[in-house]
Amino acid sequence: MQVSILGGTGDLGRGLALRWAYHTDHDVVLGSRDADRAREAATEYEQTLTAAGVSRDVKGVGNREATERGDVVVCSVPAYYLAETIETVSPGLNAGDVLVSPAVGMTGDGDGVHYNPPDAGSVLALAADVAPDRVPVVGAFHNLAAGRLADLLRDLDVHTPLVGDDSDAVSTVVGLAEDIDGLCAYSAGPLANAPEVEALTPLLMNLATYNDDLENTAVTFD
Amino acid sequence: MQVSILGGTGDLGRGLALRWAYHTDHDVVLGSRDADRAREAATEYEQTLTAAGVSRDVKGVGNREATERGDVVVCSVPAYYLAETIETVSPGLNAGDVLVSPAVGMTGDGDGVHYNPPDAGSVLALAADVAPDRVPVVGAFHNLAAGRLADLLRDLDVHTPLVGDDSDAVSTVVGLAEDIDGLCAYSAGPLANAPEVEALTPLLMNLATYNDDLENTAVTFD
Repeated sequence: MQVSILGGTGDLGRGLALRWAYHTDHDVVLGSRDADRAREAATEYEQTLTAAGVSRDVKGVGNREATERGDVVVCSVPAYYLAETIETVSPGLNAGDVLVSPAVGMTGDGDGVHYNPPDAGSVLALAADVAPDRVPVVGAFHNLAAGRLADLLRDLDVHTPLVGDDSDAVSTVVGLAEDIDGLCAYSAGPLANAPEVEALTPLLMNLATYNDDLENTAVTFD
Repeated sequence: MQVSILGGTGDLGRGLALRWAYHTDHDVVLGSRDADRAREAATEYEQTLTAAGVSRDVKGVGNREATERGDVVVCSVPAYYLAETIETVSPGLNAGDVLVSPAVGMTGDGDGVHYNPPDAGSVLALAADVAPDRVPVVGAFHNLAAGRLADLLRDLDVHTPLVGDDSDAVSTVVGLAEDIDGLCAYSAGPLANAPEVEALTPLLMNLATYNDDLENTAVTFD
């Protein structure tokens, strides 16, 4: 499968790219607004993978080309860039593709960070509003700590809840998630349930702020 | 310590009462709007504890008397009764007592359940508004599955996030939580961070709805 990660030079994008390249045979394509930055990041990721004992090709291209290449397109950009990014790449999304959003809208203050969804009700609902009707959206990977993903020699042992209205698309993303060793994905239902999934991230960030041993926290549901 | 559980005949109240009676030496007092129901529940809990190999006295009294007896008062009532309950029992709350709220405001629809905080911003903020200024409030235990608590022979192996502005009160509740074997409590910061803590419960309920193996889910943060 071709997995494209828009915003693939960011922390979460880096972590997901490294894990898919390390644990699976899927082709990993990084997208960025700046294709040169994507190429540089791809080279750095290949070196990191080599150091971890795995030789893999990682492609770095512009977001639009990454979208055209991807069967699954993970839009790993900050929430406030999400709509603009999806609008820009939409012509590259084909019927049968799946668009994945791990973005969370948050505000911060002296106490911590707080869930701050857009008017659409959730970041995923906003993504669905902007994406072409032919492309199902799935919310996933919000709660994964980038630092833990990027530490390839560390067991992940983490669960991720995901949401979406298209059950085939959800199954595709569950499969893609679980191709990564130590990552377990659970459906939390349709898109209407996205706010509670997205709100888990600020909770984890607040726990990390107030507990030294919960940096890069991994949640499990058992 | 005297631990009083208002709404102690409900599912979560039952689970907490059984666990404190089973694992600790704290005196457990059940409160209910109907003192007779509290007494009947106390007798049933004592029988359940005996069957699990532990002989304990559990008191059942009216909510007001339970409040007077408690050093820590857990207000385990539905969110829509919380303000009324706290107003009713407030004269029984002394300086030095700690008021704990595990309540979550939720709405349900065909897709799942959704976090629905009161105008105060969170159920805990509402509790703080209504409680006497002399009594600190702590939000805790929202995410604990009642069925798992009540199954005394099952290892809990669950974490609970908690919030509150008074660090001594938070420490008291962390200690009380961790006196229960297999329960680990982590501060998620001050009261302003309560919405994300409360919103974890509908996420867990949605995961349970869509995954047969996640009934009575226990969350861990590692």
